[in-house]
Amino acid sequence: MWGGRFSGGPSAVMQEINASIPFDKRLWRQDIAGSIAHVTMLGKQGIVEQSDADKIKAGLEQIFAEYETNGVPVNLEQEDIHMTIEARLTEIIGPVAGRLHTARSRNDQVATAFKLWVRDSLDEVIGAVRTLQGALVTRAEQHVDIILPGFTHLQVAQPVSLGHHLMAYFEMLQRDISRLEDARQRLNHCPLGSAALAGTGFALDRAATSDALGFDRPTDNSMDSVSDRDFALDYLYAASQIAIHLSRLAEELIIWSSQPFGFTNMSDKWSTGSSIMPQKRNPDAAELVRGHCGRIIGNFNALMIAMKGLPLAYSKDMQNDKPPVFETHDLLGLCIVAMTGMIETVTFNEDAMRKAAASGFSTATDLADWLVRDLNIPFREAHHITGAAVKLCEERGVMLADLTPQDMANIDDRLQNVTLPDLSINGSVNSRISHGGTAPTMVKQAIENAKRILST
Amino acid sequence: MWGGRFSGGPSAVMQEINASIPFDKRLWRQDIAGSIAHVTMLGKQGIVEQSDADKIKAGLEQIFAEYETNGVPVNLEQEDIHMTIEARLTEIIGPVAGRLHTARSRNDQVATAFKLWVRDSLDEVIGAVRTLQGALVTRAEQHVDIILPGFTHLQVAQPVSLGHHLMAYFEMLQRDISRLEDARQRLNHCPLGSAALAGTGFALDRAATSDALGFDRPTDNSMDSVSDRDFALDYLYAASQIAIHLSRLAEELIIWSSQPFGFTNMSDKWSTGSSIMPQKRNPDAAELVRGHCGRIIGNFNALMIAMKGLPLAYSKDMQNDKPPVFETHDLLGLCIVAMTGMIETVTFNEDAMRKAAASGFSTATDLADWLVRDLNIPFREAHHITGAAVKLCEERGVMLADLTPQDMANIDDRLQNVTLPDLSINGSVNSRISHGGTAPTMVKQAIENAKRILST
Amino acid sequence: MWGGRFSGGPSAVMQEINASIPFDKRLWRQDIAGSIAHVTMLGKQGIVEQSDADKIKAGLEQIFAEYETNGVPVNLEQEDIHMTIEARLTEIIGPVAGRLHTARSRNDQVATAFKLWVRDSLDEVIGAVRTLQGALVTRAEQHVDIILPGFTHLQVAQPVSLGHHLMAYFEMLQRDISRLEDARQRLNHCPLGSAALAGTGFALDRAATSDALGFDRPTDNSMDSVSDRDFALDYLYAASQIAIHLSRLAEELIIWSSQPFGFTNMSDKWSTGSSIMPQKRNPDAAELVRGHCGRIIGNFNALMIAMKGLPLAYSKDMQNDKPPVFETHDLLGLCIVAMTGMIETVTFNEDAMRKAAASGFSTATDLADWLVRDLNIPFREAHHITGAAVKLCEERGVMLADLTPQDMANIDDRLQNVTLPDLSINGSVNSRISHGGTAPTMVKQAIENAKRILST
Amino acid sequence: MWGGRFSGGPSAVMQEINASIPFDKRLWRQDIAGSIAHVTMLGKQGIVEQSDADKIKAGLEQIFAEYETNGVPVNLEQEDIHMTIEARLTEIIGPVAGRLHTARSRNDQVATAFKLWVRDSLDEVIGAVRTLQGALVTRAEQHVDIILPGFTHLQVAQPVSLGHHLMAYFEMLQRDISRLEDARQRLNHCPLGSAALAGTGFALDRAATSDALGFDRPTDNSMDSVSDRDFALDYLYAASQIAIHLSRLAEELIIWSSQPFGFTNMSDKWSTGSSIMPQKRNPDAAELVRGHCGRIIGNFNALMIAMKGLPLAYSKDMQNDKPPVFETHDLLGLCIVAMTGMIETVTFNEDAMRKAAASGFSTATDLADWLVRDLNIPFREAHHITGAAVKLCEERGVMLADLTPQDMANIDDRLQNVTLPDLSINGSVNSRISHGGTAPTMVKQAIENAKRILST
Repeated sequence: MWGGRFSGGPSAVMQEINASIPFDKRLWRQDIAGSIAHVTMLGKQGIVEQSDADKIKAGLEQIFAEYETNGVPVNLEQEDIHMTIEARLTEIIGPVAGRLHTARSRNDQVATAFKLWVRDSLDEVIGAVRTLQGALVTRAEQHVDIILPGFTHLQVAQPVSLGHHLMAYFEMLQRDISRLEDARQRLNHCPLGSAALAGTGFALDRAATSDALGFDRPTDNSMDSVSDRDFALDYLYAASQIAIHLSRLAEELIIWSSQPFGFTNMSDKWSTGSSIMPQKRNPDAAELVRGHCGRIIGNFNALMIAMKGLPLAYSKDMQNDKPPVFETHDLLGLCIVAMTGMIETVTFNEDAMRKAAASGFSTATDLADWLVRDLNIPFREAHHITGAAVKLCEERGVMLADLTPQDMANIDDRLQNVTLPDLSINGSVNSRISHGGTAPTMVKQAIENAKRILST
Repeated sequence: MWGGRFSGGPSAVMQEINASIPFDKRLWRQDIAGSIAHVTMLGKQGIVEQSDADKIKAGLEQIFAEYETNGVPVNLEQEDIHMTIEARLTEIIGPVAGRLHTARSRNDQVATAFKLWVRDSLDEVIGAVRTLQGALVTRAEQHVDIILPGFTHLQVAQPVSLGHHLMAYFEMLQRDISRLEDARQRLNHCPLGSAALAGTGFALDRAATSDALGFDRPTDNSMDSVSDRDFALDYLYAASQIAIHLSRLAEELIIWSSQPFGFTNMSDKWSTGSSIMPQKRNPDAAELVRGHCGRIIGNFNALMIAMKGLPLAYSKDMQNDKPPVFETHDLLGLCIVAMTGMIETVTFNEDAMRKAAASGFSTATDLADWLVRDLNIPFREAHHITGAAVKLCEERGVMLADLTPQDMANIDDRLQNVTLPDLSINGSVNSRISHGGTAPTMVKQAIENAKRILST
Repeated sequence: MWGGRFSGGPSAVMQEINASIPFDKRLWRQDIAGSIAHVTMLGKQGIVEQSDADKIKAGLEQIFAEYETNGVPVNLEQEDIHMTIEARLTEIIGPVAGRLHTARSRNDQVATAFKLWVRDSLDEVIGAVRTLQGALVTRAEQHVDIILPGFTHLQVAQPVSLGHHLMAYFEMLQRDISRLEDARQRLNHCPLGSAALAGTGFALDRAATSDALGFDRPTDNSMDSVSDRDFALDYLYAASQIAIHLSRLAEELIIWSSQPFGFTNMSDKWSTGSSIMPQKRNPDAAELVRGHCGRIIGNFNALMIAMKGLPLAYSKDMQNDKPPVFETHDLLGLCIVAMTGMIETVTFNEDAMRKAAASGFSTATDLADWLVRDLNIPFREAHHITGAAVKLCEERGVMLADLTPQDMANIDDRLQNVTLPDLSINGSVNSRISHGGTAPTMVKQAIENAKRILST
Repeated sequence: MWGGRFSGGPSAVMQEINASIPFDKRLWRQDIAGSIAHVTMLGKQGIVEQSDADKIKAGLEQIFAEYETNGVPVNLEQEDIHMTIEARLTEIIGPVAGRLHTARSRNDQVATAFKLWVRDSLDEVIGAVRTLQGALVTRAEQHVDIILPGFTHLQVAQPVSLGHHLMAYFEMLQRDISRLEDARQRLNHCPLGSAALAGTGFALDRAATSDALGFDRPTDNSMDSVSDRDFALDYLYAASQIAIHLSRLAEELIIWSSQPFGFTNMSDKWSTGSSIMPQKRNPDAAELVRGHCGRIIGNFNALMIAMKGLPLAYSKDMQNDKPPVFETHDLLGLCIVAMTGMIETVTFNEDAMRKAAASGFSTATDLADWLVRDLNIPFREAHHITGAAVKLCEERGVMLADLTPQDMANIDDRLQNVTLPDLSINGSVNSRISHGGTAPTMVKQAIENAKRILST
């Protein structure tokens, strides 16, 4: 299985283990942008003659156009994207291309291009998460009044609004946005000009390249600049958290779509059928979201391990920064977009949800709370009385809402001539009006807030 | 080995797997604080009579004093710290204690107490990192003028200032501080009042409890509030990054202390000797810092895995949030404090560093840069000429600084009658004056900035 | 929160980070056993006088008895269990105790004791897994004839025997046993006598100590012997696999116990109730099994990371081998024993299972197979016909078993005058008689095989 | 960056997240082998007519030849390799191709093909590890007599033979071989015939397909058969252990090649130079081996996470089994082959090693051992005397071998008129003749054993 690959002898194997061009070719846009910023600054500072700088810039722009059209040619002998571009530049403009690498090193060049790539990806992920949040808010708004059981331990606990349940994910994704924005801000210092590790004696204007590339400012220590991959880890962490949240939602969709639940039907668009069982809809996309989460965490783990014991400054181990980030980017994009599609198209079976919400004496807490609130009975005693009421219902095969005042009086002397509260599931849901609670009025408020956030 | 533990039969095993009091007793301060805030609000809102609220508060304060003095009693029958405290409260003030749990649930209570604990720990870690940064700045300032080799691939690359090298870790820790502060800010919404999962019908003032506990505001979705452990993951991630940075520094101290390097001597305080080899100093503390990093990443991984596929709302799997966080707190504290001690006390062997810095023709880049800068030779050609110069030195057994103008002229026609630059390691270091570079002037500037940051 | 711990200054912090006695005290039995084997050999070889060897042995036996009764005293100044025991030995028998450490080092001593401990734990885990397998076989045998849906993608796919489903876990645990046994065999080479790292000049009889301690033979390379922690990783991997299997079973029990499924009722012994909802049974133990799996994988990950980049021979990082192994041992024991208890006591709701098994046209494959087998229709065409039959049933609201021969003839011309197969769920299950299939006859055979395996 | 990929709308996104053909095309050989075995059995059993079976077999053989020549065509509409092959078969032989899928399902088909692939890879890895062991033994044999310092804590501890040091890795790889063989044996049960999950009603001869594919026997439970990915985890674990061992060796090569050590020169074939510093050899291949270890552990972690909470039987999450295994295979192959090349070509600098071995009073233990052995002084007292001797040497700036009998007598009265032992590093190494010790005689024995193992 390896045969062909290793038959070329040491030089072929070394080329294959060493070359990063098969994956780092993705950085071509960012590398060219970095080079243009660098050479423009070199020209302005008089480090390179303006005419040479202009030639180099024009050559880089031509390469950009070529790659945009034809893609990046992969040749292991140009071991990475940076050499690939420089070699092509030399073909186009001749030896003057050699002036581009003045006052920089591969080390700061790579760090800059990779940071730019990660920053672009962060922006893209932020946009995709916002779209998913929008889908959640839309569905939540449509379904504020559908009631399903809120579970703890996957046991029916209390009835809640479906809109409320969906909005819980809006909140998780808000934290994800915050994490992505923090990562973006922390990343946004420009390493270009740190050279190999020690800085340089050329009269650079690091602020100029930093500005040109949209960074907030240059980095402050050249050794750190070429050794730092925190920004890649911040990215992988933010991605892992999103993946964890999506995996939780996927788990719910899978369980909800199982026949005994029957809460949801996944759209054909996001499930696979079976020619033999046309009614069957396997929630493949949801399962893959859940499964991809494992790989995203695995990628994150991989880079933490690689970085964990490296002395300063650059070590080649760090070449293992890109494959985990690139794969995570691809998997995460699929997960967010697929989840958005699933949320937009899933149908909710109100009857099944409502029926389950009514099971398990899910309004028992409401009874207890009423005892505390209206009759001033200490909470722990109220619990006890409620337990007795539930037991009575079980014996009679009725629901809590079916109990009479006399039933309650029989249970406890303090309950003479009381007017029982509304113990229906609607009554329960409507009553929970504390801030962040599941009462439709509160959920609608939360949805309005969310819409305001999304529209800014 | 398990015998005794399992011989008690199912109920004993269930108690042991289920009870969290052996570890969550650490939350006692935070749980009592949360309860006091809660009951104070209940009193003000008239949900509990003021006199009852006062009794409860007094009882809680008494318990606080008891635990401060005697520690928390562990009894598996009170399965967690929350039941332990409530049971003691009942002993002290009788059945009125039962009113404390009005309008809250274990779920929001736990989330609140754990968030408070994590917040306290974040503050503590920030303080400890600041102290370590201070130690690095102090040593950097003392040793701006010591020169050691900057390595890439652990090969001598270019000479750098020891102060500059140490300041690279200051920068890493700056990002760590930023991560800790972001985590603190994202955490700082109060879940208290979310009840079991659906909110409550009591007329709570959630803003009041949030304020009383120092949160920025209440959380916005009750289901998310009791299901969210992002704050614990944010904590574990920030801790992992610190651990990775410290592990890198530990790796360097270990290599530097090895006899063939001999760059550093670890203080007796942070190493262990051997009665048989009195000169031997094993850098145990540094090795443990490096090793503990693995456990901190492992703990982080553990909680991501546990959360990854949980449906809403609370599931008992989430009880596995605390052991990884608590152990990480302990290990991380030891690592930061021990590293601070090591940095404060390590001695640097200037001669060994200087000698190594001079090896490997570490100023070759300076020669090449001079060819580019002063003679306007394209960088890639300058590289070629420098290679020839190094080869000549190797043949003669001399250093680059020993070459004569005639030697250079023999290598390349363009180099007639030139005045060669200073190719000593001091000359090299002094020349690297770009922002963030290793020239002492620049390092001193960076140190001044750092001191300003630390003093605010 | 750290305050007290760090206020003692560097020496207190160093003691705390460096000392392993708080956790490695667990090795006391194994350390004493190793020392007795060692000194017995030293005596026989004349390296230590026989009378001295006897005194040492007697002293060690006295310590064994003391610890058995009173536990191991923890004093951070005796940094580990090995120094703790030697110090006590010196108290008991005086300076002759100093002869015990002849021709060995802490490095081979630790490796030996820890291997012995891991071996003991492996044996214990094997026993516990066998007990769990026994419980599964017992319940499988009782419930061969209960039919539940076999799921794929958590969608009803085909009806299966509950006995068959349970026996799937028997198979997983068989592989776990195999992994545990492999780990035990690979571990079973004795490192004692490797000394610090280079071996020793004393005329040791390593085969004798190896035999005395129940190892198969001595290790073959002294440097490897003191650097190797593969045996701990083998242990953690075997544990992780068991945990993954138990987590899958736990996931099923949790879903099956959720009200909409209602397949199972967890015993009160392994669930927690709620005073307010007496019918509620939270499957806490199952959730904790699922959650603990994350920590076990985290522990495994931690040790892989710690070992990953260590040069030979012993490094202090390796002290992080024990906490992950010890915690895993404890968590795993709880998980296996609790799962055994859950399996023994869970009740199965035959009606709910049967009803779900009949949903989703779960016998459609049987129809297709019959078309292929008896009517020689190619499989892919048979699929198509079956799809049409299912669609017809859906329209009529009937089950596949309700279709008439005429219905089939209307669907496809080839189906004139056929005798339809038994499309009931019992018919389906009974028909699957391939080796390893779900037909009760086959399941009973598998159970008999399993009982034979367990009885040997 | 995702734009193009997601612009095709839901169906394009679903195809991309769902299709596995881009990676599982690697299974083509194994899938065809499985299908040929299956259809051959179907023919023999009369389940498919012999003439049809022959046509199918011929068609499959044609496809095999096509793919061997032209590779596997990737078309996302044939979502996986199994559908791709079946579609091509239908093109070649028409509807009779539809009979191939009789009595099997995608679930058992995938499990079989993937197991076969993993088995092939295990065999390949075993071969590659054997080759690496051979290289280690060859170099060990050449360098039995070179002495370098054995380190603990990366501090010089005792002198050892370079051959001995290299043979430590032979031992680690022996355990790796054992792990690979165990994995192979545990994997070697054939799932084919388990169908979707319940087995089948066709009269299969599962033993026949098992034999034809080189399995030891069919699996025993159909649900487990399609849900099991233990074999992939066993593979990933074995790979992780190899990677950890190689990473340790890589760490040593990197440190040894650093100028202050200067123990080794990496061959140009396995390092990269610099046009500017011709003497510089960056040990890139070793660093990549060390870095790849992180990714291999990450991949392993990913699959454990994905499997951790899945109910039976097949879930789509399990599609995430292949990318981690395939990538690990590729990375591991490169690592082993590159390490073999590095070991074959690295040169050892005897002088630098010898000089370092003599530093740090590395023979102090020999002096102590002599005191114990020849003068019958208890070990702990011998330690004390040795400490005094080392101190004296330090004061005088001499080595232990330079001390006179009178010096020793001055230190301790018991040392009158003694003949001091050979305290040179050669004397030390030569003396360590315990089994597994570093004395050249012992190392030569170990090498002979190793050669015997490798030749079988």
